[in-house]
Amino acid sequence: MATTVVTGAAAIRSGLLPPVGCVTETADFAGAELPGLDALVFGGHDIAGAAPMAKRAEELARAGVVPPWSPAAVAGELEDADAEIRVGLVAGEPGTLREQADRLIADLVSFRERRDLERVVVVNVASTEPPFPRRPEHADLGALESALAASGDALPPSSVYAYAALRAGCPYIDFTPSTGVRLPALDELARRMGVPYAGSDAKTGETLVKTALAPMFAARALAVRAWSGTNLLGGGDGATLADPQASRSKKISKDRSLTEILGHRVEGETHIDYVRPMGEWKTAWDHVLFEGFGGVQMTLQFTWQGCDSALAAPLVLDLARLAARAHETGESGPLTALGFFFKDPIGVREHRLALQYELLCEWAARLGARA
Amino acid sequence: MATTVVTGAAAIRSGLLPPVGCVTETADFAGAELPGLDALVFGGHDIAGAAPMAKRAEELARAGVVPPWSPAAVAGELEDADAEIRVGLVAGEPGTLREQADRLIADLVSFRERRDLERVVVVNVASTEPPFPRRPEHADLGALESALAASGDALPPSSVYAYAALRAGCPYIDFTPSTGVRLPALDELARRMGVPYAGSDAKTGETLVKTALAPMFAARALAVRAWSGTNLLGGGDGATLADPQASRSKKISKDRSLTEILGHRVEGETHIDYVRPMGEWKTAWDHVLFEGFGGVQMTLQFTWQGCDSALAAPLVLDLARLAARAHETGESGPLTALGFFFKDPIGVREHRLALQYELLCEWAARLGARA
Amino acid sequence: MATTVVTGAAAIRSGLLPPVGCVTETADFAGAELPGLDALVFGGHDIAGAAPMAKRAEELARAGVVPPWSPAAVAGELEDADAEIRVGLVAGEPGTLREQADRLIADLVSFRERRDLERVVVVNVASTEPPFPRRPEHADLGALESALAASGDALPPSSVYAYAALRAGCPYIDFTPSTGVRLPALDELARRMGVPYAGSDAKTGETLVKTALAPMFAARALAVRAWSGTNLLGGGDGATLADPQASRSKKISKDRSLTEILGHRVEGETHIDYVRPMGEWKTAWDHVLFEGFGGVQMTLQFTWQGCDSALAAPLVLDLARLAARAHETGESGPLTALGFFFKDPIGVREHRLALQYELLCEWAARLGARA
Amino acid sequence: MATTVVTGAAAIRSGLLPPVGCVTETADFAGAELPGLDALVFGGHDIAGAAPMAKRAEELARAGVVPPWSPAAVAGELEDADAEIRVGLVAGEPGTLREQADRLIADLVSFRERRDLERVVVVNVASTEPPFPRRPEHADLGALESALAASGDALPPSSVYAYAALRAGCPYIDFTPSTGVRLPALDELARRMGVPYAGSDAKTGETLVKTALAPMFAARALAVRAWSGTNLLGGGDGATLADPQASRSKKISKDRSLTEILGHRVEGETHIDYVRPMGEWKTAWDHVLFEGFGGVQMTLQFTWQGCDSALAAPLVLDLARLAARAHETGESGPLTALGFFFKDPIGVREHRLALQYELLCEWAARLGARA
Repeated sequence: MATTVVTGAAAIRSGLLPPVGCVTETADFAGAELPGLDALVFGGHDIAGAAPMAKRAEELARAGVVPPWSPAAVAGELEDADAEIRVGLVAGEPGTLREQADRLIADLVSFRERRDLERVVVVNVASTEPPFPRRPEHADLGALESALAASGDALPPSSVYAYAALRAGCPYIDFTPSTGVRLPALDELARRMGVPYAGSDAKTGETLVKTALAPMFAARALAVRAWSGTNLLGGGDGATLADPQASRSKKISKDRSLTEILGHRVEGETHIDYVRPMGEWKTAWDHVLFEGFGGVQMTLQFTWQGCDSALAAPLVLDLARLAARAHETGESGPLTALGFFFKDPIGVREHRLALQYELLCEWAARLGARA
Repeated sequence: MATTVVTGAAAIRSGLLPPVGCVTETADFAGAELPGLDALVFGGHDIAGAAPMAKRAEELARAGVVPPWSPAAVAGELEDADAEIRVGLVAGEPGTLREQADRLIADLVSFRERRDLERVVVVNVASTEPPFPRRPEHADLGALESALAASGDALPPSSVYAYAALRAGCPYIDFTPSTGVRLPALDELARRMGVPYAGSDAKTGETLVKTALAPMFAARALAVRAWSGTNLLGGGDGATLADPQASRSKKISKDRSLTEILGHRVEGETHIDYVRPMGEWKTAWDHVLFEGFGGVQMTLQFTWQGCDSALAAPLVLDLARLAARAHETGESGPLTALGFFFKDPIGVREHRLALQYELLCEWAARLGARA
Repeated sequence: MATTVVTGAAAIRSGLLPPVGCVTETADFAGAELPGLDALVFGGHDIAGAAPMAKRAEELARAGVVPPWSPAAVAGELEDADAEIRVGLVAGEPGTLREQADRLIADLVSFRERRDLERVVVVNVASTEPPFPRRPEHADLGALESALAASGDALPPSSVYAYAALRAGCPYIDFTPSTGVRLPALDELARRMGVPYAGSDAKTGETLVKTALAPMFAARALAVRAWSGTNLLGGGDGATLADPQASRSKKISKDRSLTEILGHRVEGETHIDYVRPMGEWKTAWDHVLFEGFGGVQMTLQFTWQGCDSALAAPLVLDLARLAARAHETGESGPLTALGFFFKDPIGVREHRLALQYELLCEWAARLGARA
Repeated sequence: MATTVVTGAAAIRSGLLPPVGCVTETADFAGAELPGLDALVFGGHDIAGAAPMAKRAEELARAGVVPPWSPAAVAGELEDADAEIRVGLVAGEPGTLREQADRLIADLVSFRERRDLERVVVVNVASTEPPFPRRPEHADLGALESALAASGDALPPSSVYAYAALRAGCPYIDFTPSTGVRLPALDELARRMGVPYAGSDAKTGETLVKTALAPMFAARALAVRAWSGTNLLGGGDGATLADPQASRSKKISKDRSLTEILGHRVEGETHIDYVRPMGEWKTAWDHVLFEGFGGVQMTLQFTWQGCDSALAAPLVLDLARLAARAHETGESGPLTALGFFFKDPIGVREHRLALQYELLCEWAARLGARA
């Protein structure tokens, strides 16, 4: 997905593509004083030995995710981003978690200084982790620091990245349902460092549609009796979610919205199936059984067929720009106005898409009004 | 549909059914000081020789629209409503339109006085008319009065009913896309009489879902390239709409919302097919082709399977109660806050369902705050 | 379902309903010399304390499965069938399995003699059992008889019923995916007794459509890459299949057809979800990803919305009549020509619906041609 | 579509692509003694000024219809085919129809002789024409010859091409619903010339699925009450069918199959909508309302999403090879065994897909058995 982000952003900056899918490029955000798309510089942490972006962009072009001409047209930008990729956490890496985090922090600081950047926003777009059990040290920053300095595995990788970002003074965005920044100790750190954060689990398909549709039933006093869903997806994310542990993280995150919007638990399973030949594409089918006047049962079904990277990539740009501006204007802690982008927004219980959008726009107006 | 309204309202009042589908029975309207469901008295105009409500309720029970036990359980209320049904306009009726309207007015006033009612709300739930060409006398009340007093057909039946309602001091609701009250001369009359009105064309299916979903595309900056829809419906409404002229009224009304929400005309046809064996049921299939980041084309499809009367009937109760309270508090002219209920709301351009609901709730709060 | 069978058959015999859904009432079976619908007498084994058929028929009428007038119209037939219901196997029943089977056999023989019937066909319409592990004694009739006579649980209930039916000289039909008659030892018994049998797992929904559609892909040389399915069902069957063990039996049976028709295993999961509020209804959504000329990926989706009892009941009548005629003409062992009715036909590998129908018709013609 | 045919055939011959979608490459046709794919030479008639195939192949690659590498890989074959393209009939062309036909005949004969071909099969893949009114001269070859020799427009273009093909001794295939060879006078000509022909209107989507599914309802004695369909298509074919006259040809052809299979006319409309942004893709949604045991109404819906050229192109190869072999073995007149490929097969009333496939395979076996 990172390759889609860089390729697309470069093509938009060069005027080769319109900014379709970029929320922050619409009129509602014109006054928010966000950093321009052309002010962004890309870098990141990746696993060792990952293919260069140029090669991955060509694969994406073959799969129809980015235009066929685009890898060549933005070759320079891809190379530039590649040069800023460092090796991330490695399973079985020696040293304490604090030592590992220090390496990540050094990379972030070096990137910011070498490239003379005002700030760096870290976005976690890694594969989904299984749920990580809560521990006492997650509740308190002091205790967490001690645990990180000792040997042991006090945090899952996503949270080590979050810790490193916050320590380096970088806003942090959880694009996945992994634990990440969602711990009281890390919230404490973010506030102490004066750094904002947001998450978690970007909504780009089934849940996006659900949070647009469920309020309709609520507003019309129609009683939803069951909401069942099946998600078919290929690609890397599909393979990760074929692991029942990882998909458990995802399902927990997906189910929350319905309960919040309708005010009660609703019957119905959510399936996530890995269908390898679907490649970059995902399909969600949802079946809603609801009851109307006189107890009559009726149904709504929808089928969403989307390209995962194309849906997610522009949101990375949106979130990075919004978080950067929030940081610039002095916000710290959870950015609840970003709930619009997430399946399981941190720090806020509003899941209705239209109202989330209103909150986002109002906040964007306030961002613009600040110095 | 009138039979479903009376049957359902009686069953709810007696505690035999929960008020599912009644918007005004939810917590958001608890403080609006609306007339109670048990304060409502039903009457109406119908074609001569229509079957009694008891018989129609049994047909509805057989079709699964109302519970099988309900016709017997509410027999008294059905009989009571039947006794208040008068013959409406008759094709080829002698006399000027004003004379015909006077007969309707006398019926309305007699109903109000005999039953000692505070007010009567007239809801047009007749079959959809073909579009009626605009005439100069539609623009001005004085000219319209002269035309009605002369022989001729200055107004379609729906507008004669609207004229009569307003003249009788009754709030008027257009549940259909027919011309009805939607004329400058009738707006003038409503304001002069101090009577509120609303319309038009209740949204109970495809358009309801459309206005919940289309804002999602707009908010996410996804470019809708085509929105195609097919509506299959049986029942009386289906037969009427099998007439291309009548269905033209419906299509115009259905298409407006998308253009307003997305800000531009969108390609795609809307079909309305009469499928007799579907009886009281309707099915809508919509196919949305949209473009995301990098120009990737994706699709959303939905299938809505609903029972027309069960979807529409509770809205009649909601609209009657809200219009009655508006009248009581002195509002006149178009009730724009009722846009939530209509495909083509009069006097307001907001079509996004969630925002319409917000406007409705805010207005309900104001209604409650008044004396 | 048994109640639907008896109610429907009685209504058809009385001319109150057309024989829609009855394969054997079509022209293709006119010459097969099948017993008439009015020659059928109903009885059965049920759990102790089951509600009388009259009561269940009323529940079915309320749920829209049988016409509202039908329970009253066929009250006599329902009472007649009720009088022939005996208590079946009881969990924890004392005695050896052979002793239990002897009780069933006595019931069958008594039914045949008291009612002066030419033959009795036993159809297993009980809830689906979990898969039962194969044992050495399943392979040989002698060994099985010894095991039944000893204490122990050599057979699951469905197979005890099958054993009893065959021993009583009754053709046996497996309507479910339970083990039933599908054991070499029981095949040996059937042949020795000169009794035909058939099964298993009636196809009435998703698999029916699959076996109509999959041959299309094969014949057109289109490469099916993945076939995913989700089944939502309420009712008794849904509750049983909510148990992962029981649904495993069902899934094994459902998956076989695709492999046989396409000639290779196909990716894709099949989900069976219990959705209680769906009552007697079931919905299947299938998503087929296939590849055409030049490697282009395309999709077919279908949604099947059916009433389980209404789909299954007429097949019980068809199977009983066909098995009765087969028995009359001297057939014994598996009736492979009945594969048309089953998800996992015994004794034959043809799963293509159209060819199964051809085989059935050819066999019906042969049945008719015999003495 | 012609470009897809040539590109795909060349890629398959070179081993660059597997022959997915080619019916005649499956095991069932191994013994039919068909000409090999590498024995085919491509040429054709096109409108003047059409873009060269190389350019069109690149457009197809960009649209994802042929693999991105294929235009370069088969550049030689595309050039070779381009060199054999001649200008076809031109609207308003001077001369009698016979003179115009003579020009086409000369092209065909020259192609056959210059390239030293055993035979040429003509496949009409032009845009669909509006229905052409029947005339007396269509019934008799002598009368037709006179009419062609006089000035006037006795035949639509598709039939002039058919006439020319037959006169040149070339088998003729109608891939479209245009009039083409479907006239008694042309049948007479074909038989006199000893030339086989087939048609019409290749089934590649909605109708293909319909003819696989409709027999299921018939075989199960389920009563189809309404079958409604909506087809969304872009591309050249979509634009042509946006013309109500042309789409009338298509609808007539599409509707026939259902009536034939179910034995009666079925309610329900078929819509064909041109949705320009869909490009090469088409989507069909069908809604089937059917009745089962006890009069219960149920539904089946399907959505077919296909790439038109990728579905049609391999059939052109199949039909050319089968027609060539039929010609070689001396068949003339309508090739009824090719009904499998057509929405409205000439000379045969069997529309059930599975049985059509059986007839085709049996015929293929007979073709192989001949000298």
